[in-house]
Amino acid sequence: MSERVLAGTIRETDVEKSILLKGWVQKRRDLGGLIFIDLRDRSGVVQVVFNPNHEEALAVAETVRSEYVIEVKGQVILRDENTINPLMETGKVEVIATEVSVLNKSNNPPFLIQDETDVAEDLRLKYRYLDLRRSPLQETFKKRHQITQVVRNFLNDEGFLEMETPILTKSTPEGARDYLVPSRVHPGEFYALPQSPQLFKQLIMMSGFEKYYQIARCFRDEDLRADRQPEFTQIDIETSFLTSDEIMTMTERMMQKVLKEVNNVDIELPLPRMKYQEAMERFGSDKPDTRFGLELIEVSTVLANSDFKVFQGAIASGGKVCLLNVKGEAANFSRKDIDKLTEFVNVYGAKGLAWLKVEANELKGPIAKFITEEEKKGILESAAAEEGDLLLFVADKTSVVYDSLGALRLKLGKELGLIDESKYNFLWITDWPLLEYDEELGRYFAAHHPFTMPFEEDIEKLETDPASVRANAYDLVLNGYELGGGSLRIYKREQQDEMFKVLGFTREEAEEQFGFLLDALEYGAPPHGGIALGLDRIVMLLTGRSNLRDTILFPKTASASDPLTDAPSEVSEAQLTELSIHLNS
Amino acid sequence: MSERVLAGTIRETDVEKSILLKGWVQKRRDLGGLIFIDLRDRSGVVQVVFNPNHEEALAVAETVRSEYVIEVKGQVILRDENTINPLMETGKVEVIATEVSVLNKSNNPPFLIQDETDVAEDLRLKYRYLDLRRSPLQETFKKRHQITQVVRNFLNDEGFLEMETPILTKSTPEGARDYLVPSRVHPGEFYALPQSPQLFKQLIMMSGFEKYYQIARCFRDEDLRADRQPEFTQIDIETSFLTSDEIMTMTERMMQKVLKEVNNVDIELPLPRMKYQEAMERFGSDKPDTRFGLELIEVSTVLANSDFKVFQGAIASGGKVCLLNVKGEAANFSRKDIDKLTEFVNVYGAKGLAWLKVEANELKGPIAKFITEEEKKGILESAAAEEGDLLLFVADKTSVVYDSLGALRLKLGKELGLIDESKYNFLWITDWPLLEYDEELGRYFAAHHPFTMPFEEDIEKLETDPASVRANAYDLVLNGYELGGGSLRIYKREQQDEMFKVLGFTREEAEEQFGFLLDALEYGAPPHGGIALGLDRIVMLLTGRSNLRDTILFPKTASASDPLTDAPSEVSEAQLTELSIHLNS
Repeated sequence: MSERVLAGTIRETDVEKSILLKGWVQKRRDLGGLIFIDLRDRSGVVQVVFNPNHEEALAVAETVRSEYVIEVKGQVILRDENTINPLMETGKVEVIATEVSVLNKSNNPPFLIQDETDVAEDLRLKYRYLDLRRSPLQETFKKRHQITQVVRNFLNDEGFLEMETPILTKSTPEGARDYLVPSRVHPGEFYALPQSPQLFKQLIMMSGFEKYYQIARCFRDEDLRADRQPEFTQIDIETSFLTSDEIMTMTERMMQKVLKEVNNVDIELPLPRMKYQEAMERFGSDKPDTRFGLELIEVSTVLANSDFKVFQGAIASGGKVCLLNVKGEAANFSRKDIDKLTEFVNVYGAKGLAWLKVEANELKGPIAKFITEEEKKGILESAAAEEGDLLLFVADKTSVVYDSLGALRLKLGKELGLIDESKYNFLWITDWPLLEYDEELGRYFAAHHPFTMPFEEDIEKLETDPASVRANAYDLVLNGYELGGGSLRIYKREQQDEMFKVLGFTREEAEEQFGFLLDALEYGAPPHGGIALGLDRIVMLLTGRSNLRDTILFPKTASASDPLTDAPSEVSEAQLTELSIHLNS
Repeated sequence: MSERVLAGTIRETDVEKSILLKGWVQKRRDLGGLIFIDLRDRSGVVQVVFNPNHEEALAVAETVRSEYVIEVKGQVILRDENTINPLMETGKVEVIATEVSVLNKSNNPPFLIQDETDVAEDLRLKYRYLDLRRSPLQETFKKRHQITQVVRNFLNDEGFLEMETPILTKSTPEGARDYLVPSRVHPGEFYALPQSPQLFKQLIMMSGFEKYYQIARCFRDEDLRADRQPEFTQIDIETSFLTSDEIMTMTERMMQKVLKEVNNVDIELPLPRMKYQEAMERFGSDKPDTRFGLELIEVSTVLANSDFKVFQGAIASGGKVCLLNVKGEAANFSRKDIDKLTEFVNVYGAKGLAWLKVEANELKGPIAKFITEEEKKGILESAAAEEGDLLLFVADKTSVVYDSLGALRLKLGKELGLIDESKYNFLWITDWPLLEYDEELGRYFAAHHPFTMPFEEDIEKLETDPASVRANAYDLVLNGYELGGGSLRIYKREQQDEMFKVLGFTREEAEEQFGFLLDALEYGAPPHGGIALGLDRIVMLLTGRSNLRDTILFPKTASASDPLTDAPSEVSEAQLTELSIHLNS
């Protein structure tokens, strides 16, 4: 008897071989004195047949049920022509069992281990070890492994060193909320889990390593949305002495390799690039899905003096009027349908959704009466509108126009089937604003983080016109998802001081929170920059999953808990006392 | 002008080439109107010469100091025969600078960036980014990268999937202390950072993946000793359906590959194996350094009726008398020297260190008068003692004899130069005790962890004679350091229940803490087992460092703090309020 053979690998060439199998009972069927078992292991499934020639084996087979773990000795034979299963990779063969033993039993599982499932997610997470046996999840984690392996080999070949940065680190008040860890040795003091290795990877550059990467765990104590997890993983890269062009080019080659080796998809390089401003104007989004058109069309000039007060008012108060031309769909959208779209844009702050249909060479719809002949001409021309088109307008302040029409564009793109799902449309977004103004708080925030380098030629505007300063930053977008982004970093002390000043830090605050970085800038910090890509999201897009939780082995729910282990959970008073803390009552 | 060239790679074959260099000023020397700069980058150092033919460059060179970051254009030339530096890899060439610019300045560093240093570690940790520029640390982290890369490729080729287990997980009361993380979403509840991915890797086996690995970060809130860090990294492996032999064999092949590819050292397989009991008896240690002899020799039988009360008493109360024969060293150890050794063994609980010297065919020393002729013969024979040998005795309870003489053996081995430092002596320790008895608490503890499988044939003794039950566990030792260990795991519910019972858990306690694992055992858990190896320690041994902190990029001090970032640190009241905790006053 030879070594164990993997079930999913058995083929016609194995016929007549005596083999040893180990795995799980996927299914048992009893049929005319015979027992058929689909035996599953990590490689796939093969059919095992128990017949009365091997009585003992048959008797054992009668006792097994789904998810029992068994060991089978047997012989590979060809299936009868009429029992060949073309849907199974092993469908031309089967194994005649001569011996079988039960390695472990199984209770009746709370749900079936099958490819498609409509079992509630909470139950699947509680029995994650059963859910993970399903073939789509098995495939997902095989691909996740492959992706990281390709990335590691690529970066190794490029001369990068994999380096580990601390998980127990210092709390900084920037960005999302830190997870804190009380210290037993230092009562009243806390470590923080890193939101990213940003500061450490910059310190690694200041340490002279020049090329760093890490598949890094990061932590954010945020309210969880559908696509966020308290812990997530990023491909974290930092380099010294490279330009942003060089960093983008290298990242492109890495992603090209991943797509080729993992999904056998060819991508052409260089990847297209688009400035932030253009992305917002054309797609109403800083991460446009360019697999389809339906772009935003601005008609502010055409409608500047419109009799329709909503248009005129928006433009007069510094906003915009933009439209989507939903080609040929006029007849397919009822007033009720459009009401639903209006509700949809309301969510994004738009007060309304005006619409016109192009019918018999006329504009039809409730606001048609406000549109002059000249405006009509202007609209049709700008929108390249033709008979049967539906025009959807939002007039509002610019950010609302972009947000609402950007979202509406995506919704219609999906619902009208405009998206070619076979495409992998990558896109770099560049020329980001360095700062964002928070109207409530009345001050500027770093759009990325406070270590991002501004464009050389914009630096002089940092104090006079902060909003117009562009960052030397770049985001990589795939099919409308942000895969990640990066930037060149500030490497001169004076510039970093200036940046903190613009962000409203006092000298003392900057020192207290980032003193070690500021110090490091004074000891020969090299020019440097990098990028971080979300691994979980890359896995999601490359495996065609729709949910980040499917890409993480043991994920948390939307309330940041784990139904499997019951984390988080209460701890003993003694543990808290050791940590010099107690609970608020 | 071509692309940037790495300083350390320039050779005679590059002579006459025009090149571009970027890096740090290692050293500047002014000599007869010329300026010599040793330019350092991640690849090494090259000498750059500034001469009056390039006046502008010379003027800039005059302004630079150590650790400035500069960019140099120049031409490679051969050095004059008499200025060749055989200690530098680039010592036959130098670069005549034609242009230079300063990319960043540097303050005078608080210590010199040189290979050997006696600067206090706290200062080096505070300026870790400067310390890391030193060539021995650069080399250490290059090797650390190589080691993980070899391990990953090996395991990938063996069909293992790299998988990430959670860092935010559930607190369990086993083993060393957990780091806790308060939850904002669930007031009063805490996550714990994992001491190891043990439970998750077992769940991965129950998920049907069969071959898992992870270079995993682990956390232990212990009092720190010289060789412990609050966070550390292990090569974590788990497999289904393999025997312990197969797991050990695979691990051996992995380590063989690491040694070969990283240090160009050949190791012969299979690695030697030794049972725990034998290791204790011969070396007084469960991680013996087998690069030298000086083994423990038991002389309890010989001295059972000794007139020397200490010997007789120890044996009568169930202990032992063992000795080390320090060959040929009798003349080199004065009474004072031996007093110091006595103090040394006192630390390990030994009440004294008896000694005898073999001189002129007689045993000499304070206790010689108690030794009968027959005992003398017995001792000389057991110890194969000859003229000039020094015999050092400990008589005590067995654990004290082993601990003290085991430690003394190592100390003498080092001090007497008995150790061949070029050797890599691997050793498997097998047949571990499953349980350890805690005399203070009056109960048994799991020697490894409560999921370790006992030897089949010992299971029946679990209740009747727990101390004699052996674990199906194996530790890998290199040169006296434990690299790590593993075991087969319990995969049947009844056996795990039994184990918890022996460990004194009530059914409810077991359910509350490990219910999810116990459940999982009931749904077709496969036979499984694995191993975990300490990456930091492997790096330490393969780079010849003597300190784990040198193998971790940003380590913590002995008090678990980071002098660079000042972690842990105080946080705001607002942060604590969010987490529903406050500090004990």
